[in-house]
Amino acid sequence: MGDEEAVLFANDRFYIAFTARDIKAMEELWATSGVICVHPGWQPLYGREEVLESWQAILGEEGAPAVKCRVPHATLHGDTAIVICIEELDGAFLCATNVFVREDGDWHMAHHHAGPVHMDESDLPEEPDVAVN
Amino acid sequence: MGDEEAVLFANDRFYIAFTARDIKAMEELWATSGVICVHPGWQPLYGREEVLESWQAILGEEGAPAVKCRVPHATLHGDTAIVICIEELDGAFLCATNVFVREDGDWHMAHHHAGPVHMDESDLPEEPDVAVN
Repeated sequence: MGDEEAVLFANDRFYIAFTARDIKAMEELWATSGVICVHPGWQPLYGREEVLESWQAILGEEGAPAVKCRVPHATLHGDTAIVICIEELDGAFLCATNVFVREDGDWHMAHHHAGPVHMDESDLPEEPDVAVN
Repeated sequence: MGDEEAVLFANDRFYIAFTARDIKAMEELWATSGVICVHPGWQPLYGREEVLESWQAILGEEGAPAVKCRVPHATLHGDTAIVICIEELDGAFLCATNVFVREDGDWHMAHHHAGPVHMDESDLPEEPDVAVN
C-alpha cells in the first residue's frame, strides 16, 4: 500500500470508529503525543488525554449522529500527511482537516479540526466518494 | 532561533500580511506545492494559484477586517509544524489550524483552515498573547 492510500485508509478508520462509536478504535488511531482536536465550534483541546475524553463523551451520547466522509484528499509531507474532506452529518456538511503522523510505521491522527461549510449535495464533485457507512 | 520560535514567527508573518493586506508577503509565505485553504464557511480551495487568488480577493476588499492572532500554539513534526490559534476579527473569534512545511530552510504555510468558535474574551487564557496589530 502506498503512503497516500495508507493515509486515506487511516482517515477511513477515523470515520468508521466515529460511526461505530468505537472508543477503543479511536484510542488506537490517535497518536501518542502532539495531539490536538477542534470539534465544531469548540475551543481547541490539547493533549491525548483531553482529546480522548471528549471522544468518549461524544461517542457515548444518545443519538450521536452517523457521519460520512466525502471526497477525502490527502497531501503528503514526509512523515506527516494532511487529509481534507467533507463530513456529512444528518444532511449537514462540515469541512475537516485531519493531520496524520507516522509512528512505528503506521499513520496515526495527531490533529482534527472540523467546522461548518456552506454547501449542499449539489456542490459535491461527482467523482466516487469514500463513504464509510 | 529554534524551530518552534521560527514556526511561530512564520505564523505571525501570516497575520501581519493579512492585517497589512500585503498580498506580496502572502505570496512569499505560502509554500510552493501541496497548498490548501479553507476560509470560514467556504469549501476547500486546492493549489497555490486558487488559494492566492482567494487572498487577493479578500485582501482587496473594502473594509477587510483587521485580525489578531491570540494564544498561538505550535506542534513540531519534523519538517512539518501545526500551529493552532484563536483569530480575533472585529470582536468575533475563530479557531485556525495553520500547517507549515520547511522549504529550503524556511517555514512556509501549506494549509490554513479557519472556522467559528463559541467563546468570548473571558475564555482566553491570561498568558500574554501574540498580537500582531
